[in-house]
Amino acid sequence: MTTQIVPSYVQDTWWTPAEDSRTADVRDANTGEIVARFGSDGLDLPAMVEHARTVGQRELGQLTLHERALKLKELAIYLNEHRKELYEVSFGTGATKIDSMVDIDGGIGVLFTFSSKGRREMPNSNVVLDGPAEPLSKDGSFLGTHIYTRIPGVAAQINAFNFPVWGMLEKFAPAFIAGVPTIVKPATPTGHLTEACVRFMVDSGILPAGSIQLISGSARELLDVMDYRDMLSFTGSASTANRLKSHPNVIEGGVRFTSETDSLNAAILGPDAEPGTPEFEAFIKAVVTEMTVKAGQKCTAIRRTIVPKGREQAVVEALRDRIEQRVVVGDPRAEGTTMGALASLDQLQDVRGAVEAMLAAGGELAYGSLDAPVVKTQGGEDAVVPEGAFMSPLVLTWDDVNAEAVHSKEAFGPVSSVLGYDDVADAVRLAAAGAGSLVATVCSNDPEAVRELTVGIAGHHGRVHILNRETAKTSTGHGSPVPHLVHGGPGRAGGGEELGGIRSVKHHMQRTALQGSPNLLTAVTGVWHTGADRTIAGCEAFGAEAAHEHPFRKSLAELQIGDAFASDLRTITLQDIEDFARETGDTFYAHTDARAAEANPFFPGQVAHGYLLVSWAAGLFVEPAPGPVLANYGLENLRFITPVAAGDSVRVTLTAKQVTPRVTDEYGEVRWDAVLHNQDGEIVAQYDVLTLVEKENTTYKNW
Amino acid sequence: MTTQIVPSYVQDTWWTPAEDSRTADVRDANTGEIVARFGSDGLDLPAMVEHARTVGQRELGQLTLHERALKLKELAIYLNEHRKELYEVSFGTGATKIDSMVDIDGGIGVLFTFSSKGRREMPNSNVVLDGPAEPLSKDGSFLGTHIYTRIPGVAAQINAFNFPVWGMLEKFAPAFIAGVPTIVKPATPTGHLTEACVRFMVDSGILPAGSIQLISGSARELLDVMDYRDMLSFTGSASTANRLKSHPNVIEGGVRFTSETDSLNAAILGPDAEPGTPEFEAFIKAVVTEMTVKAGQKCTAIRRTIVPKGREQAVVEALRDRIEQRVVVGDPRAEGTTMGALASLDQLQDVRGAVEAMLAAGGELAYGSLDAPVVKTQGGEDAVVPEGAFMSPLVLTWDDVNAEAVHSKEAFGPVSSVLGYDDVADAVRLAAAGAGSLVATVCSNDPEAVRELTVGIAGHHGRVHILNRETAKTSTGHGSPVPHLVHGGPGRAGGGEELGGIRSVKHHMQRTALQGSPNLLTAVTGVWHTGADRTIAGCEAFGAEAAHEHPFRKSLAELQIGDAFASDLRTITLQDIEDFARETGDTFYAHTDARAAEANPFFPGQVAHGYLLVSWAAGLFVEPAPGPVLANYGLENLRFITPVAAGDSVRVTLTAKQVTPRVTDEYGEVRWDAVLHNQDGEIVAQYDVLTLVEKENTTYKNW
Repeated sequence: MTTQIVPSYVQDTWWTPAEDSRTADVRDANTGEIVARFGSDGLDLPAMVEHARTVGQRELGQLTLHERALKLKELAIYLNEHRKELYEVSFGTGATKIDSMVDIDGGIGVLFTFSSKGRREMPNSNVVLDGPAEPLSKDGSFLGTHIYTRIPGVAAQINAFNFPVWGMLEKFAPAFIAGVPTIVKPATPTGHLTEACVRFMVDSGILPAGSIQLISGSARELLDVMDYRDMLSFTGSASTANRLKSHPNVIEGGVRFTSETDSLNAAILGPDAEPGTPEFEAFIKAVVTEMTVKAGQKCTAIRRTIVPKGREQAVVEALRDRIEQRVVVGDPRAEGTTMGALASLDQLQDVRGAVEAMLAAGGELAYGSLDAPVVKTQGGEDAVVPEGAFMSPLVLTWDDVNAEAVHSKEAFGPVSSVLGYDDVADAVRLAAAGAGSLVATVCSNDPEAVRELTVGIAGHHGRVHILNRETAKTSTGHGSPVPHLVHGGPGRAGGGEELGGIRSVKHHMQRTALQGSPNLLTAVTGVWHTGADRTIAGCEAFGAEAAHEHPFRKSLAELQIGDAFASDLRTITLQDIEDFARETGDTFYAHTDARAAEANPFFPGQVAHGYLLVSWAAGLFVEPAPGPVLANYGLENLRFITPVAAGDSVRVTLTAKQVTPRVTDEYGEVRWDAVLHNQDGEIVAQYDVLTLVEKENTTYKNW
Repeated sequence: MTTQIVPSYVQDTWWTPAEDSRTADVRDANTGEIVARFGSDGLDLPAMVEHARTVGQRELGQLTLHERALKLKELAIYLNEHRKELYEVSFGTGATKIDSMVDIDGGIGVLFTFSSKGRREMPNSNVVLDGPAEPLSKDGSFLGTHIYTRIPGVAAQINAFNFPVWGMLEKFAPAFIAGVPTIVKPATPTGHLTEACVRFMVDSGILPAGSIQLISGSARELLDVMDYRDMLSFTGSASTANRLKSHPNVIEGGVRFTSETDSLNAAILGPDAEPGTPEFEAFIKAVVTEMTVKAGQKCTAIRRTIVPKGREQAVVEALRDRIEQRVVVGDPRAEGTTMGALASLDQLQDVRGAVEAMLAAGGELAYGSLDAPVVKTQGGEDAVVPEGAFMSPLVLTWDDVNAEAVHSKEAFGPVSSVLGYDDVADAVRLAAAGAGSLVATVCSNDPEAVRELTVGIAGHHGRVHILNRETAKTSTGHGSPVPHLVHGGPGRAGGGEELGGIRSVKHHMQRTALQGSPNLLTAVTGVWHTGADRTIAGCEAFGAEAAHEHPFRKSLAELQIGDAFASDLRTITLQDIEDFARETGDTFYAHTDARAAEANPFFPGQVAHGYLLVSWAAGLFVEPAPGPVLANYGLENLRFITPVAAGDSVRVTLTAKQVTPRVTDEYGEVRWDAVLHNQDGEIVAQYDVLTLVEKENTTYKNW
């Protein structure tokens, strides 16, 4: 019986090429059995891109950032219910249970994190402000600001074979939140696992039409139909990245291109980390973990350990001991296996070839053997399995730590080299010799050494993982990108950036400078800009009209950006200041001692407390009766500008600036612009008041 | 007499090639007279790059971000004193007085803005935090954060001929603040003006060794000696950009590459902007200005005006009228000239060729002529000057607004096309047909039209300039990038980003994710992280030791990151809450009406005011006697977390988190981490307190 061809998901339907078209076989990494066939003859790539740009953009554009973020949570819950079905497929790729959890549960975790960050850290709209407004004219009539809006094309995502689920979801999540439709192209050796996951995503019914398409098989012509509106995110080999980067549609056409390629990541053992210290132990554990998780097939794996000269042998021995205690190579379905096969016999051959080249270039095999190892078979026996892509962990040492091969040749398997350094500056130099890496570990408990090493290598790295006794148990690990932090690195590592929370959402958006009047910037951004029109309630001397209601009486359904309240002036006496000092205990001399206050370079003499001013401001702007405003949960960017002395008066103007209705609650956030003026119209203080306001006036409707 | 070869500035000395080496002549754009010769045979580019990476990096690295920013202000003041000498050179490039001011004064203005923003918006160190820390373990022992550190190489800057001073300074300023040495390569036609400016910069004695080098002449091999540590910023033609982008050291070597190429920028006239409206008038003025400033030789010039169908003729006539009233073509040194020559006869030929191609592709000449115009000569006569690169302004119309040529063919001179649109969606489509532009103007007084147009085109543009009656007088103009806002655009515009204040400083830095313990992240960043060690004064029940002094008694010279004060608990009574309500006027029901407060979903019942809590906190942490802490000037990121009811107690812990000594004052900013706990150890509120603290205890030393 022929294995079925793995289908693609095209224009919202599953598609399979003709049964007699060209296909490539994929085999079980442990047993050599054929498990999938891939082919894409006849796939209509231009139609896929067009579908994304039209249907996908339209359907995603009908949702806000928060609505899309919430869908990711629903999707994560759905996939979580089906993850055991994905593990079954995963074992056949050589992944152990732990490897599969990293890939599958890790991918689902990215969805949860992005869903939560998207709703917590972004506005509930489709225009995202970047930074504060900049006054560009003296009279305030012409302002500048920056916005992010989604790119108007497709996010094409080409993934590597080693993380068929995580690799897809970590690229899909930010594109989806941004509102950009995805076309995902997994690597063939594990593309059937990606297909299984995409099938669950589609079956969930959660995703809008056009938001995801899948290419199972080759997609060589994909870039031919992309342009500057689109983005291509690539993970894989440097040579493929370079080929894609050179495509005319990238060079001339302006396709946004980002890549993450494997790099020769280092782990530096600090001068203080002698054998016997908790740091030495943590270092050895980290290196062995990185060598054996996914059988070392991780872009982030530690390829070079950089240790104090003279300590090389101790490191090699400690690595040997730990490998011998902990590592059992075999079929992941066998009891006791801790390291599975490489992804394929081709991969095995590549890794062996790389090791042989390193040995020829001066490396010495300090531990392990290139011979096919005895492994646990699925049935539980110990045997050599030539049709399985098994390999034993290898440790190399180098007489010449500057040999080019150790800094440039990558064996993408359970292989690591030990290099000795002279001093901290030399360690920095050796780490940098990788010419740009995804991640390095700095393992030391000496703050000064950690500072020098970390700042020294930071410019060459996308991530630095600092390990010491305080974090030996709680670290998420050298090799694991976390969704909160950026993943990627300069130079050899591809020069790209993924993850990092909403940073990666913004990579799917265009930053655009805007210039215009406060009214028109308010219209475009949905956020009130200083100087824009207002509907003012309150004191008529300060711009209010009697017909207008206090904005605190309005629910989100009624409130408009620019609804405002202007208070009357309230005069502050010396008695007020002294009472406040006594009651709060804030007897700072500027408020209590006229002579000392006069000597202060910032005060005209004895002045009111800043906290008195903001407390009184609340008293001036508040509408005390129960209503839709439920709480003042915070305050931001408070600056005290003009001091207030006894005899001065203050008034406050409060303006609805930004509204963020929550997609999961019956209320939302309202950010208010608060400005305090004195009797001369000078600005005394300004800040943002943050409140929770009901969507409808529910709780106190009939109060 | 032979004109001297324009020197290069190499490894901190002026260098000129042998007199008999190959050179290219540059002529006065107005008169054809030879004014400069350029040659670079024998220039040692590898030594220049090495000098930047070693001496330049070392010398710049000895200064902090603020120290470098301050030097830019000193440099701006110095150049300002010499700007008239630069004008003299500038006239010969065809630039009028106003053009020269845009270039020279504009460039100096960039230095002032960056100097001020660098000191106001960045820390006074060399490690810049990006975003808040992220807890990565439940117990808080493992955190993640992001830092920016400068790239470890050189910033090579290739500039266009049209802004020889501004173009250099706008790229130099952010690189310099970041601490990255510059090698600047101006365009030959105006490179002698750049050389004159660099000479002043060097003569000023303000710049550290290695921080700037200049290539006068060709630098074709520059990329051959650059790698992933370096950055190449290019402004100029798309074809040159594409050639550079395809260089193996960019594709494989990972040189950071950013480009700004000219684009076919649009100006859209809103449906509401009928002839006779202030918007129509502002639109016509803007288009004529963009056609004639620098004789239209601006990457940002308006090449396509997109106007409501049926209004094309009115626009053409209004443009004609304004050109005829306002534009006098001639030698910039002649009285009355408002538009100078193009930069060279070569440029003139290019522009004429482009216009002829557009006419052949369906464009019609609606105003102006390709014949050599009668112009004002330097002597003040009216004459045709064949050796001057003069051209008259041209307006084209198109029967087929979708003709490819009008959206892709650029005449880099005083040339603009008028296109009619059906509706707002059609206007968006036409603007986007430029396939990525630097800037578009949206001219309308209808907020909804402005919103639709702006959000519709934002993804295709680096900047959108919104023009209406409110900004007709105060706008800084369609064509002028301002240092506060990003300059650059997707696709055809090069895909890069410059300026935008500290955004461009960060483009010269590597963003690196950091993971580690609070103590070690504090050591690396110089900013206290929650959970790191502290030296606590105050209440011994909450971690203080009697030997420690209150941190408010310490000047910046004495204060250490992590110095802290822990207060005792203070109990809040119902009377306190009611007194505070009465005195401040903040009688919000949650503080005054137990029954209403209980119905509120966030409160357990009647609770203390948030403002009471922060006021009391100040009372708890303050050290009232005069000392080095001069003022509390603000507060940030305040969040109220657990409500406080009568009978509860609160205490506060204040920790020195970040210190920013000012380079120009005898004090600096100290940011304190403030956390309020209740009697059960729950967090009640947290925020940052911002204070001004003296470097030495001066004012109140002998108080």
